[in-house]
Amino acid sequence: MKMPDPLSLTFSALANPTRRAILARLAQGEAIVSDLAKPFDISGPAISKHLKVLETAGLITRGRDAQWRPCKLEPAALKNVDAWLDHYRALWEARFDRLDEYLRGVQGKKPGEKRRKRKK
Amino acid sequence: MKMPDPLSLTFSALANPTRRAILARLAQGEAIVSDLAKPFDISGPAISKHLKVLETAGLITRGRDAQWRPCKLEPAALKNVDAWLDHYRALWEARFDRLDEYLRGVQGKKPGEKRRKRKK
Repeated sequence: MKMPDPLSLTFSALANPTRRAILARLAQGEAIVSDLAKPFDISGPAISKHLKVLETAGLITRGRDAQWRPCKLEPAALKNVDAWLDHYRALWEARFDRLDEYLRGVQGKKPGEKRRKRKK
Repeated sequence: MKMPDPLSLTFSALANPTRRAILARLAQGEAIVSDLAKPFDISGPAISKHLKVLETAGLITRGRDAQWRPCKLEPAALKNVDAWLDHYRALWEARFDRLDEYLRGVQGKKPGEKRRKRKK
């Protein structure tokens, strides 16, 4: 089977809430496996499998200390996701600009006009 | 099987180069399936499957016209990815700031000093 391209590997690794929670923890600083496993109700081997996926995607690296192998976040892979998103940023910004323009237009027609209740 | 959370669905949909190429095409404007299939050496059903994944992830919507059903990019799902990345942006920016600082430091020590070859 062909190895996926790096960006696909990154997106695939991020497509799991446990792995994203591990990254959020590592954003606070390095951690060892047992500490990373604590907040989750899953087995040690399951955590190790998630770490392997994150490591293959270049999102984390692991220390060489055979006993502890602390995990460390590698933000460069996330920066690649950000660079990919850049091509689309203008699209949603344009959309929100149009929404903003529309809302200003609506508000221009006497604020609160539409919400005022008619008295019978 | 439990339905994945929306962000996992989005990341999972993005973890494929063909699907990302489809989004890049749709960033230029709406398109029908046969036009989307053209640049790829894959079957119509395979394209339809990719479109279904993108649609389930909220990355595209499809028109109601039964015959054509044009596809349209929905940038809101990508905006959610951007919002998630926001938590990490400071990390790689800090790292690049440190690199920049280091490089300025190195350059401060007489540019080219380290690369000069010793003459025997």
